[in-house]
Amino acid sequence: MSLDPSRLAPMANAIRALSMDAVQAANSGHPGMPMGMADVATVLWSKYLKFDPGAPDWPDRDRFVLSAGHGSMLIYALLHLSGYAAPTMDDIANFRQIDRPCAGHPENFLLDGVECTTGPLGQGVAMAVGMAIAERQLNAHFGDDLVNHRTWAVAGDGCLMEGINHEAIGLAGHLKLGHLTVLWDDNNITIDGSADLSTSEDVKARHVSAGWHVVSCDGHDTDAISRAIEEAMADDRPSLIACKTIIGKGAPNKQGTSATHGAPLGPDEIAAARKMLGWDHEPFVVPDDIIADWHGTGQRGAEAHSAWKSRFENSARMAEFETRMGDPGDRAGRAIEDHIRSLAADPQKVATRKASEMALGPLTAALPQMIGGSADLTGSNNTKTPSTVPFSADDYSGRYIYYGIREFGMAAAMNGMALHGGIIPYGGTFLIFSDYCRNAIRLSALQETRAIYVMTHDSIGLGEDGPTHQPVEQVMSLRLVPNLNVYRPCDAIETAECWALSLQMPATPSVLALSRQGLPQMRGEGDAEWTSASNRSARGAYRLSVASAGRKVVLVATGSEVHLAADVAAVLEQQGVGADVVSMPCAELFDAQDAEYRADILPADVLKVSIEAGSTRGWERYTGTEGINIGLDRFGASAPAGDLFSKFGFTADAIVPKIINKLNS
Amino acid sequence: MSLDPSRLAPMANAIRALSMDAVQAANSGHPGMPMGMADVATVLWSKYLKFDPGAPDWPDRDRFVLSAGHGSMLIYALLHLSGYAAPTMDDIANFRQIDRPCAGHPENFLLDGVECTTGPLGQGVAMAVGMAIAERQLNAHFGDDLVNHRTWAVAGDGCLMEGINHEAIGLAGHLKLGHLTVLWDDNNITIDGSADLSTSEDVKARHVSAGWHVVSCDGHDTDAISRAIEEAMADDRPSLIACKTIIGKGAPNKQGTSATHGAPLGPDEIAAARKMLGWDHEPFVVPDDIIADWHGTGQRGAEAHSAWKSRFENSARMAEFETRMGDPGDRAGRAIEDHIRSLAADPQKVATRKASEMALGPLTAALPQMIGGSADLTGSNNTKTPSTVPFSADDYSGRYIYYGIREFGMAAAMNGMALHGGIIPYGGTFLIFSDYCRNAIRLSALQETRAIYVMTHDSIGLGEDGPTHQPVEQVMSLRLVPNLNVYRPCDAIETAECWALSLQMPATPSVLALSRQGLPQMRGEGDAEWTSASNRSARGAYRLSVASAGRKVVLVATGSEVHLAADVAAVLEQQGVGADVVSMPCAELFDAQDAEYRADILPADVLKVSIEAGSTRGWERYTGTEGINIGLDRFGASAPAGDLFSKFGFTADAIVPKIINKLNS
Repeated sequence: MSLDPSRLAPMANAIRALSMDAVQAANSGHPGMPMGMADVATVLWSKYLKFDPGAPDWPDRDRFVLSAGHGSMLIYALLHLSGYAAPTMDDIANFRQIDRPCAGHPENFLLDGVECTTGPLGQGVAMAVGMAIAERQLNAHFGDDLVNHRTWAVAGDGCLMEGINHEAIGLAGHLKLGHLTVLWDDNNITIDGSADLSTSEDVKARHVSAGWHVVSCDGHDTDAISRAIEEAMADDRPSLIACKTIIGKGAPNKQGTSATHGAPLGPDEIAAARKMLGWDHEPFVVPDDIIADWHGTGQRGAEAHSAWKSRFENSARMAEFETRMGDPGDRAGRAIEDHIRSLAADPQKVATRKASEMALGPLTAALPQMIGGSADLTGSNNTKTPSTVPFSADDYSGRYIYYGIREFGMAAAMNGMALHGGIIPYGGTFLIFSDYCRNAIRLSALQETRAIYVMTHDSIGLGEDGPTHQPVEQVMSLRLVPNLNVYRPCDAIETAECWALSLQMPATPSVLALSRQGLPQMRGEGDAEWTSASNRSARGAYRLSVASAGRKVVLVATGSEVHLAADVAAVLEQQGVGADVVSMPCAELFDAQDAEYRADILPADVLKVSIEAGSTRGWERYTGTEGINIGLDRFGASAPAGDLFSKFGFTADAIVPKIINKLNS
Repeated sequence: MSLDPSRLAPMANAIRALSMDAVQAANSGHPGMPMGMADVATVLWSKYLKFDPGAPDWPDRDRFVLSAGHGSMLIYALLHLSGYAAPTMDDIANFRQIDRPCAGHPENFLLDGVECTTGPLGQGVAMAVGMAIAERQLNAHFGDDLVNHRTWAVAGDGCLMEGINHEAIGLAGHLKLGHLTVLWDDNNITIDGSADLSTSEDVKARHVSAGWHVVSCDGHDTDAISRAIEEAMADDRPSLIACKTIIGKGAPNKQGTSATHGAPLGPDEIAAARKMLGWDHEPFVVPDDIIADWHGTGQRGAEAHSAWKSRFENSARMAEFETRMGDPGDRAGRAIEDHIRSLAADPQKVATRKASEMALGPLTAALPQMIGGSADLTGSNNTKTPSTVPFSADDYSGRYIYYGIREFGMAAAMNGMALHGGIIPYGGTFLIFSDYCRNAIRLSALQETRAIYVMTHDSIGLGEDGPTHQPVEQVMSLRLVPNLNVYRPCDAIETAECWALSLQMPATPSVLALSRQGLPQMRGEGDAEWTSASNRSARGAYRLSVASAGRKVVLVATGSEVHLAADVAAVLEQQGVGADVVSMPCAELFDAQDAEYRADILPADVLKVSIEAGSTRGWERYTGTEGINIGLDRFGASAPAGDLFSKFGFTADAIVPKIINKLNS
């Protein structure tokens, strides 16, 4: 690094100027954080961060995560100044404007170099933990020559105060992720004012208690910052660098106060800041010499990239590495062909959580990028297979993570792994605890990650654990999340099909809602020669059985209620009422079918009856308001599952009369 | 306390026997925790806990929270043995059976003495924090004579590993809640096996870093337990007592292993445990002498209760205390009469979050039990009023809590406050962060607490912060939660009406979804003499304006889309198409109306069009599948709000042609 240290201050001031000017132009945003952390970021990017602006997707780059995503102007300034193709200066001048890439919070799908979407506090650090796990896992398989990089996260007080931070740092400390460094913007300011209003915590001591290395520095002293970073890099534990900063540094009257946190500084204060910083350039103008210094910061990374490329091209593992980092295509579908054919020949009555384990056997054997885990429910979620040996601080080559009782941290780490590349993460918990990690699932969807949530015990069918553990509204509420596929398979074959679909969607996360209780196998006929192309779940819903008598009813059900629908149909047929049974393992995929297919499956001229042991609201989409919705719009209760299904009317005896009455009315 | 210390061991063994026998009879459950914590619980209940089995609702009782709710047999045994009217021994023998009170996890609505519903890990401790806040707040107002009790929580490794624990203990430490003690069942076992599989944390050091007092003891040495409890009681900080225990203690072959955690011990091991414990009684039989010792444990509390009653009856504050602890009835409705009448006379164009603040002024002035707060978004949620001065460690008389960036912890603490009694908690965050606290909101609903969530920035109308901050599916997904009222008022008058309704529902929590952006006042005509009885929002939906031309369309909208619906209606009317506008501030209350009212508001014979800037799924309930659902089924974007409403089709120009086309088709 040949940069004259005295050049760092003007480089940092370029960040400050762009930040305050962009926020002012947008008339909204958060100038305080980028101005406060400008010095730290400048030191990191110019001396330590391994990145190549010309190759933002280079797999062995360092990952930089702006966990405090409201300070988005920091990363936009860094990307622009260091020479990424985007954002342009015009993009920065159009911060927070429609159809422009410099969004209010950084979005991974809008800009290269934004490794993940941040803003929901705490999740950036937790995703960084996932990235650091991915790096160690790949390193264990491919060695230092191909994988040896670091993960850096910038976090504010909010990120550290959120509950997920406890889960994230607990996991990172336990796994001794020494390539992870969190740079804490220790400015003692939150939106409400001084952090003292709401916290008295010794943040550093807490990190030490979680097994972290901790070092402090003056976040405006570039030498001190360098020393702290070097100490962090030398330690084999994850590191917290407490950077003592002044929020809004450079704004003479507002710095150090919450006034700089989330609002434009105003023209007068910006003028005063220009004076204080010695920055006499127009808005969105950075002098060529400073630009040149910034462009130089990518040089180290470009050289490292070039060296990496040589190693890569000479590596015996090149093809394997490319396969690992690439999309598996239809390997998942092919991997389960034998499994499904054998189920067709020899039907199994198993819980779909068990069916999931059965499918995971061949899938994890075929796809080394699948890294499993559970939030302390391994035996209940059935997520572990012979191929997925434990991943631990002693053995990073493993493929199974004991996440502990950390659902939210698990989900966010899964996002980080998926975003890192080379990993398809799946993780288990009870479906009810989707509530605990819901916003991370939402970020899977927004970020278009292939994260697969194995969520078992998916209804009152879990029985005795009672209403706190029985999902009611969870299945339907997850269906509301855009770009999320919620699968609720009815038997062992559908479960395998849904697993294949989950793995085949590179930009859509999946939730597999699986039963605790055993379910009869509904499929098999016609599946003796099953291939991936014949995956019936792929259209979201399909006719499982066809009315014998004249069709007057279509029963549409999911998961553990499909066999009940078949029972209802059988009774109706005995009474001369023809009834189709439609299984709908994935409503989202069904909604994506053309109108003709949908009308064929759910014709207009018959009574449509939905059966699902959960919220009925939302089912009117398929049954119309003239149909019947059999469901549960109250909390469950503690009792054996059979008693609950009876109590809440999930029996043919209870359902058939409703249908007959409706047909007669 | 005259109990011979040597009697404690058989008392604890009674808990062990009942726990293992009940789990065995149910063939499901968690014997390990109650057997491990039997000694600690016996010491606490017999020597320290202030409770009166004959008066479970006595306001000055200690609160005992079984945060590790899966160990429910512990509290069932304690309640039965100590002489509560329920559960009976027959109830215990019918553990986890239908329509019986000994549910899989303890439910506050099934048994007196169960202070809160637990099972979702971590929330018990967080609710205990809320109870301890409530106790200090009431103590500050009513003094030691009327309010001076402790809160105890039993927590396992899971409770402490969950993210919410960080938020809860951070808040408790900051607020110096010295009457709060957490008894940690430190057994080093989780469901997956040894806790070492997933954690390396120094739990005690973490609590110290959060400002807690920490003491350890051998959880099977009754003297040591007593010493630790006394040390905790003497300290003015919240205390963690690390009770080193053996999970499943007493089961000779399984104790100390995860095999005892969540499954019956089996007949052989139970027989061996009987031998090891010297317990030769039949299942569900406890000898009279041990029952007598247990019944004696309530004596201290009964005496304390009696003394309290004398003080209470002689207190000048008696009436005030009763008013404070009782239901406010319609005081909320009356408190806003002048406010609404003044809005009728002088319409205001304000954001509904601002309208909420305007309503909160008279409400918080009239209702001292209202305790507000925000998760670090006070200025954005508009939750603070002149009446609600800060609650802090220096001044417990305050009524406003700076919760910090702790949404989940806030929501759970609110539940604890509401359950404690004497407090109606309300707390703010952005609606998007309902995802962070979703399971605590669910527990508000399940536990029937009057917790009021002020959730602002309720759609893409928040603008520039972008998709991470823009609710899309949140409003509809919260509507799916049973026993939760989701209000989305359209203007200042509806906002005040919805606040009154929220306060008038003693057993139903509320979410107020409020806009960031200013909204025109739609109401006023007919509201000049507004009274609580004329609250139009009370029926959930009502006709805001009536078609002039022949009615062909009913537009039903909520919140910020109601004025858009009015604009659409105006254009339609100009074209000779009659259109009603229906405002639906609360779908749940509308669903509860009789069929006649619902059919009058949403008649069968017209085109029904829903307009809400969120998920459309669920709106078919009101429009049928032949209606039109204007909504947003994708993530938002970062831009000024007006640009987003245009981009996503929320304009009369975009909507009117859809309606005309439909009418013509």
